[in-house]
Amino acid sequence: MDKETGRIEAFSDGVFAVAITLLALDLHVPRLNELAPGVRLGGALLGEWPAFLAYVTSFLTILVMWVNHHRLFELIRRSDHWFLIVNGLLLMGVTVIPFSTSLLAEYIGHRDASVAAAVFSGGYLLIALGYNLLWRYALRVGLLKPDAPPRAVETITGQYRFGPLYYLTAFILAFISVPASVGLALGLAVFFALPSVPGKK
Amino acid sequence: MDKETGRIEAFSDGVFAVAITLLALDLHVPRLNELAPGVRLGGALLGEWPAFLAYVTSFLTILVMWVNHHRLFELIRRSDHWFLIVNGLLLMGVTVIPFSTSLLAEYIGHRDASVAAAVFSGGYLLIALGYNLLWRYALRVGLLKPDAPPRAVETITGQYRFGPLYYLTAFILAFISVPASVGLALGLAVFFALPSVPGKK
Amino acid sequence: MDKETGRIEAFSDGVFAVAITLLALDLHVPRLNELAPGVRLGGALLGEWPAFLAYVTSFLTILVMWVNHHRLFELIRRSDHWFLIVNGLLLMGVTVIPFSTSLLAEYIGHRDASVAAAVFSGGYLLIALGYNLLWRYALRVGLLKPDAPPRAVETITGQYRFGPLYYLTAFILAFISVPASVGLALGLAVFFALPSVPGKK
Amino acid sequence: MDKETGRIEAFSDGVFAVAITLLALDLHVPRLNELAPGVRLGGALLGEWPAFLAYVTSFLTILVMWVNHHRLFELIRRSDHWFLIVNGLLLMGVTVIPFSTSLLAEYIGHRDASVAAAVFSGGYLLIALGYNLLWRYALRVGLLKPDAPPRAVETITGQYRFGPLYYLTAFILAFISVPASVGLALGLAVFFALPSVPGKK
Repeated sequence: MDKETGRIEAFSDGVFAVAITLLALDLHVPRLNELAPGVRLGGALLGEWPAFLAYVTSFLTILVMWVNHHRLFELIRRSDHWFLIVNGLLLMGVTVIPFSTSLLAEYIGHRDASVAAAVFSGGYLLIALGYNLLWRYALRVGLLKPDAPPRAVETITGQYRFGPLYYLTAFILAFISVPASVGLALGLAVFFALPSVPGKK
Repeated sequence: MDKETGRIEAFSDGVFAVAITLLALDLHVPRLNELAPGVRLGGALLGEWPAFLAYVTSFLTILVMWVNHHRLFELIRRSDHWFLIVNGLLLMGVTVIPFSTSLLAEYIGHRDASVAAAVFSGGYLLIALGYNLLWRYALRVGLLKPDAPPRAVETITGQYRFGPLYYLTAFILAFISVPASVGLALGLAVFFALPSVPGKK
Repeated sequence: MDKETGRIEAFSDGVFAVAITLLALDLHVPRLNELAPGVRLGGALLGEWPAFLAYVTSFLTILVMWVNHHRLFELIRRSDHWFLIVNGLLLMGVTVIPFSTSLLAEYIGHRDASVAAAVFSGGYLLIALGYNLLWRYALRVGLLKPDAPPRAVETITGQYRFGPLYYLTAFILAFISVPASVGLALGLAVFFALPSVPGKK
Repeated sequence: MDKETGRIEAFSDGVFAVAITLLALDLHVPRLNELAPGVRLGGALLGEWPAFLAYVTSFLTILVMWVNHHRLFELIRRSDHWFLIVNGLLLMGVTVIPFSTSLLAEYIGHRDASVAAAVFSGGYLLIALGYNLLWRYALRVGLLKPDAPPRAVETITGQYRFGPLYYLTAFILAFISVPASVGLALGLAVFFALPSVPGKK
C-alpha cells in the first residue's frame, strides 16, 4: 500500500536533503590572505552576518516544507503520472529557495531591495501554488488513503486555501515596503511550521 | 519481491535527486560589486536568462527521465549483475545533462552553436540508447514481474523503439540547423513526458 | 510500525550522506600552473596537510554522529510534529561541521585560533544540545518502542547527560588554551564513537 | 530481517550516489570569453580530454564499488557497532576517488606522475583493505544470513583475498612505471566488475 508512493517520497526526500545540505556551501571561511589589514577573525565572521542569516532562514524554510510534504504524503495512498510531474514542479520551487534567499541577503538595504524581495516572495508564491495544485489534484483524482482522517484532510485544505493569496500580497508588498513583504513571507513560514491540528500529529 | 530491486531504485533515486538539485548551483546571484555602473538588479537578472532557461529545461528533462525510470522499474521484479551495470551507464548519461545543457546555453547564437547542439542532442541519444538497452535486457533475461500488464510492456517497447532514431536525427540536424535540432530534442522530451497509456498510470 | 519513522530516517540519512560526501570538495588538486617554481607535487600535497586532517576529522565526526542517530532511532517507534522539527535543527548543526572544521584548519597556529576553536567547539555544543533535546522530548512524549531495552535507554540517557557540559567546557577552554579545547572536543568524539553498551550492539 | 541493515544501506547508497554525481561538477563548460583567439569550441572540448577520461573512469569505478557493496550486503543479515564504523571508513575511501583520479589526470605525462599514480593506486589499496576488513569482520562476528549460499560466500572471500596484494603491487609499480601501475589498477577494477559467480547473480 505504502509501496505505491515509496519511490516518490524517496526521490523527494533526496531533493530536500541535498537542497538543505548544499546551503552550507554558502558559508565562507575567511581565508588568512583575504583579511584586510587590522581585521581580526571575529570581525570578519560578524561581517558575514547576512550569509549566516540567509543560511538559517533557508534551512528552516526548507525544513518546514519537508515537514509539510511529509504530512501531505501521509494521507496519500497512490500516485499517477501527473501527480509525479506536479510533485516535481513543487521540488523545482524548493531547489530555487537558496538562490532567492541569497539574492535577498545580498540586496537587502540596497536600492534594488524591492526586486530581490519580489523574487524572494515570488518563489514562495510558486511553491504555495505547487502545494495547492498537488493537494487539489490528489483530492480530485482520488489518490488519498480511504482511511485518511477527514479532520486532517480538512485542516490541510483550510491551511492551504489562502496560502497563494497571502504570498501574492507579500509579492505586491515588495514594491511598496520591503520589510513588510519579507516579514509577511517569514511570518507565513512560521504559520506553516505549526502543527496542522494542535495537540495532534 | 520488491526488495530485490529496492537498492537499485534507492541508488538511482539518489543520483537523480542529486543531479536535479545540483542544477541550482548554476543560478548566479549578481554580486553588488559585479554590477556594471548604471545596471540595476532587474536588468542583471534578465541578462542571465540563458542560465534560467537552461535550469528549467534541465530540471524538467531530468524529472521526465526519473518518471520514465520509475515507470520502467514498476514492471521489474528482480535484477542481475549486468542490469545493475547498464542502469549505472544510464545514470552516467543523466548526470551529464547539466553539462551539455549549460554548454548549449553558453553557445546558442554563437558560430559554434552547432557543436554545442551536437553535444546536447548526442547526450540524449546516449540516454535513449541506455533506456533501450536496459529494457531489452530486462525483457530478454526475464527480469519482469510475471504479472506485468502486457499492454504496459508493449507501450514501453513501442515508445522506446524509435527514440534512438529520432535523437540521431536531432544529432545530425545540429550540423544543418541548430533550432531544428534543439526543437526536435525538446519536442521528444515532451513526448516522453506524456503518460505511456493515456488515461492510465 | 517502523514505517512511522521511515521517512525521517530517510531524510536524515540523505542529509548525513550529502554532508559527509561534500567534505571531499575541499580536497584541492594542486594545478600544474599553480605550483611555485621548484616545488614538486609531493611537497605541494604535504603542504595541504591541514585540509587533509580537517577532511578526516570531519568525516569521522559526521560518521560517529550518524551512528549515534541510527542508535537513537532504533529505539523510536513513532514521531510527531515537534520531533521532526527538533531532528531538523540537529541536522542543521551537522551540516555546519564542515564549515567550522575548515575554519579551525585555516586558523590553527594563528593569533585568532581561539575564535576558530570557539566556533569549532561551539558547533559541537549545539549538536550535543540537539541530541539531548531530541532524546528528552522522545522520552517525555512517549515516542519510544514499548519493547525498547531499558538498559539501552539508560545508557543513552547516561551518555548524553553530561555531553553539553563537557562541550561547554571545551568552548570556554578555547579562550584559555586552544590545544586543550580542540583535544577535549576530539576526545569527546572518540567517547561517543564507542559502543553504548560494551559487548552489545 | 532486512530492516536491520536497511539504514546502513540507505546511508551508503546516499554516499555512493552523491559521490558519483558530484563527479560531473568537474566537467567544465569553456566560457566564450575564455577561449583563446582562433580556438573553436570543438578544439576546446577536445583539449579537455583528461577531465572527460577522469570523469568516465571515476564514474565506472564508483559504480563497480557500489555493485560490490550491494552484492556483499545481500549476504548480510544484521549489523553491529563496529560494522557501521568499518563501513563508514570504506565510504571515506570511496569519496576520495574523485580527488585521486583528478590528481592523476592533471599529472599524467608530467615528471611528478609517479606521485600521482601512487596516490591513485594507494586510494584503491585502502578501499580494498576496507572491503576485506568489512567482510572478514562480518564472517567472524556472524553477521551473515543463515541462508547465505555458501558458494557466494566463498566466491567473495576468494575474490577479495588477493585484492590488497594486487593493489599494493600497483602502488609499488607507481615508482617504477606509471603506465604499468595505472594499467594494473584499472585492470583490477574490470576484474571486480565481473559477476562473482559467472552465469549467476
